[in-house]
Amino acid sequence: MSFSASVLTLYPEMFPGALGVSLAGRALEAGTWSLEAIQIRDFATDKHRTVDDTPAGGGAGMVMRADVLAKAIDHASPPGDERPRLLMSPRGRPLTQARVRELAAGPGAVILCGRFEGVDQRLIEARGLEEVSIGDFILSGGEPAALVLLDAVVRLLPGVMGNAVSGDEESFENGLLEHPHYTRPQEFEGRPIPEVLTSGNHKKIAEWRRAEAERLTRERRPDLLESEWFSKG
Amino acid sequence: MSFSASVLTLYPEMFPGALGVSLAGRALEAGTWSLEAIQIRDFATDKHRTVDDTPAGGGAGMVMRADVLAKAIDHASPPGDERPRLLMSPRGRPLTQARVRELAAGPGAVILCGRFEGVDQRLIEARGLEEVSIGDFILSGGEPAALVLLDAVVRLLPGVMGNAVSGDEESFENGLLEHPHYTRPQEFEGRPIPEVLTSGNHKKIAEWRRAEAERLTRERRPDLLESEWFSKG
Repeated sequence: MSFSASVLTLYPEMFPGALGVSLAGRALEAGTWSLEAIQIRDFATDKHRTVDDTPAGGGAGMVMRADVLAKAIDHASPPGDERPRLLMSPRGRPLTQARVRELAAGPGAVILCGRFEGVDQRLIEARGLEEVSIGDFILSGGEPAALVLLDAVVRLLPGVMGNAVSGDEESFENGLLEHPHYTRPQEFEGRPIPEVLTSGNHKKIAEWRRAEAERLTRERRPDLLESEWFSKG
Repeated sequence: MSFSASVLTLYPEMFPGALGVSLAGRALEAGTWSLEAIQIRDFATDKHRTVDDTPAGGGAGMVMRADVLAKAIDHASPPGDERPRLLMSPRGRPLTQARVRELAAGPGAVILCGRFEGVDQRLIEARGLEEVSIGDFILSGGEPAALVLLDAVVRLLPGVMGNAVSGDEESFENGLLEHPHYTRPQEFEGRPIPEVLTSGNHKKIAEWRRAEAERLTRERRPDLLESEWFSKG
């Protein structure tokens, strides 16, 4: 069975977007995965198709209504649908490659894209939404985050990557940032490729790459060396 | 002067994508920012328009060539161009809201989207690229990450957000995850809005929101409470 994504959004025209091109686009055409973008506004009940209202307790911005969103989710994900229900939100747990891999091994995902100040908390609780963050920054809405999450998942689906080996050697798959890469030409603006890489000594090359990966990780992301997530990765 | 983004990519058709819609799209039309997507392949020198080659030292995948990328970057960003040069890469420093704000206050950005196994290290050093990561997961390429970075930046440009107040109360802007939101209806599936929010007591409401923000941050992101980044935020 192919991976099935349903995205709930006020901007269905943003999909498939970048996911309609390249690897993900070819896999979409081939039926390796499917993508349905659902207009939340279609589930509003007034003639203005209102989806939001002012925050209880006051403050700036608007909040997406629980009742409208519940209808949209219940339409996209009826009882028996075993796909996880995600809410893209900066308040969520940070997305990890381990979670990406779990999602790719599952039946798909129902993804709610928040807009405005956020989503009524009661909807999140009543529908058991898993809040997922792609990083510590604020987007105009959940849509760009949903594109990123689906891109990460789709490339792991069977048959999508040309070279299946690639997946295992990359950053995070072994808990380290990836070592530096080099390719021809042998010299670029006076800079040669490090000698060890052209030595033909596979053991030395592997050692150099491991040492470089460890050095980069120590310099840039000491947090990864301490993190529990990655020992599970 | 408006914010100017130049994106170097093998898939220029992915742009503006989601950035052509909604807030970012209207700002693009209004000239608040500009976006140029440059095809890296146009700077290849052989008849097959090759941009990559096998990794020095062996291994899976392909590496983007320093010489081809240097030509593309030098075209997009000639001497005197003061825009920072970014490389979207999972090896980079994690993007933060503080960095987003700095970028939004500057003249723009030149953004190189990596593909395949990565980019020749000598190009990164020779052109002083700032490696930026949007999270600990692997994408099919830098393009979805570039869309996310630009979305985060563009919403902070003057005049883009309808309600300028919104920016200050959001997650990360004060080093905490945002408190839960509620709006009408007063009762949803038997769940009422928390009483304090409808009390009209602004001091109590502010206290409740602060306490909830702290609770959520402690539960989900204890790292934020210890992080240096956010004390600078």
